[in-house]
Amino acid sequence: MTNDTNVTWHEHSVSRDEREQLNGHKGCVVWFTGLSACGKSTVANLVDHKLHKIGLHSFVLDGDNVRMGLNAGPGMLKERHGEEFSKRFAQDREENIRRIGAVAKLFCDAGLVTLTAFISPYRRDRDAVRSTMKEGDFVEIFVDAPLDVCEKRDPKGLYKKARAGELKGFTGIDDPYEPPAKPELVLDAGAKSAEALADEVIAYLKRAGKIR
Amino acid sequence: MTNDTNVTWHEHSVSRDEREQLNGHKGCVVWFTGLSACGKSTVANLVDHKLHKIGLHSFVLDGDNVRMGLNAGPGMLKERHGEEFSKRFAQDREENIRRIGAVAKLFCDAGLVTLTAFISPYRRDRDAVRSTMKEGDFVEIFVDAPLDVCEKRDPKGLYKKARAGELKGFTGIDDPYEPPAKPELVLDAGAKSAEALADEVIAYLKRAGKIR
Repeated sequence: MTNDTNVTWHEHSVSRDEREQLNGHKGCVVWFTGLSACGKSTVANLVDHKLHKIGLHSFVLDGDNVRMGLNAGPGMLKERHGEEFSKRFAQDREENIRRIGAVAKLFCDAGLVTLTAFISPYRRDRDAVRSTMKEGDFVEIFVDAPLDVCEKRDPKGLYKKARAGELKGFTGIDDPYEPPAKPELVLDAGAKSAEALADEVIAYLKRAGKIR
Repeated sequence: MTNDTNVTWHEHSVSRDEREQLNGHKGCVVWFTGLSACGKSTVANLVDHKLHKIGLHSFVLDGDNVRMGLNAGPGMLKERHGEEFSKRFAQDREENIRRIGAVAKLFCDAGLVTLTAFISPYRRDRDAVRSTMKEGDFVEIFVDAPLDVCEKRDPKGLYKKARAGELKGFTGIDDPYEPPAKPELVLDAGAKSAEALADEVIAYLKRAGKIR
């Protein structure tokens, strides 16, 4: 018997493939992108709910669980106005998306259908996240609703504040939204119900072989 | 029929309780802390492996999957030497642990037995992570191995570099390690095998009602 405290211990890692076998489906990142109030979070949560009901393992990353944790911390802007705002806003936004991408990748490696719901307005930032993942792992879904529809919904009154100049750098008002050039799926969120859109996402995941 | 694109959509969130019911066990964060090369990552991966084999859902966060993703990015030190080092090292270390804690909390909310393996030398940083979680969710495990045992193992030659002054702020050499005041579990990693320690962790999780 050797004294095994003196040797480098062997690592027994569980592979992603083994985790996916346990779960009975693939891990992936379903990345919803679109204007504020276009329905990203609603559809993501509905997909999560439907997948859960049939025994699949999924999770939603959205503003509700990321804003106060992962993307809090030193150096991050807390308010979207004031003098500090404009020069630091763009780089914070990029770093937020980068971190969310890194966390989504971990959830994907854990074998979960990982649904992210963030405006993520810049093509470059989304493409950067995609580039960190294996081919096929990143499913980009453009939740396409006209600005006027989103602005009419305005559940948190953010468009109103942005129009009044109280919120700077608001996507669609004084900051651009760049639609994906080649998304895996486009959802017509101006015309269809969240229920119908969630079913379209699930149908896509089946076609792509992510779930049964 | 109302046009439901004009109303705030109802959110269907899956509760943590529902996720835990699907998984058949509780989510929690098993936070391993201890000197470099004390066996944190080995034991964490072994616990993960053993839980996976009996059909439980677990995941390991350690340097291998966090260093290049979550904790990369702008503003983070890439090298542990040079003039910039000393003044920024402490705050980077704190922010690294904060982010890992935020991600571990997300995995816990997803219902996974989440195993983290980081030196996390400062009591304040670990306590800050604990304070973000529900009572009982944070299981702090002190992987206790004498410095000389860790230094003899030195699988990556880091202690050697630290002794030579090539790595600054190395825990146990020129930076303190603060053992937990009230850890949920202490593992005697100087004397026992990784196998035995992993079994102790699993026995604890059973006693604590996290797993069957």
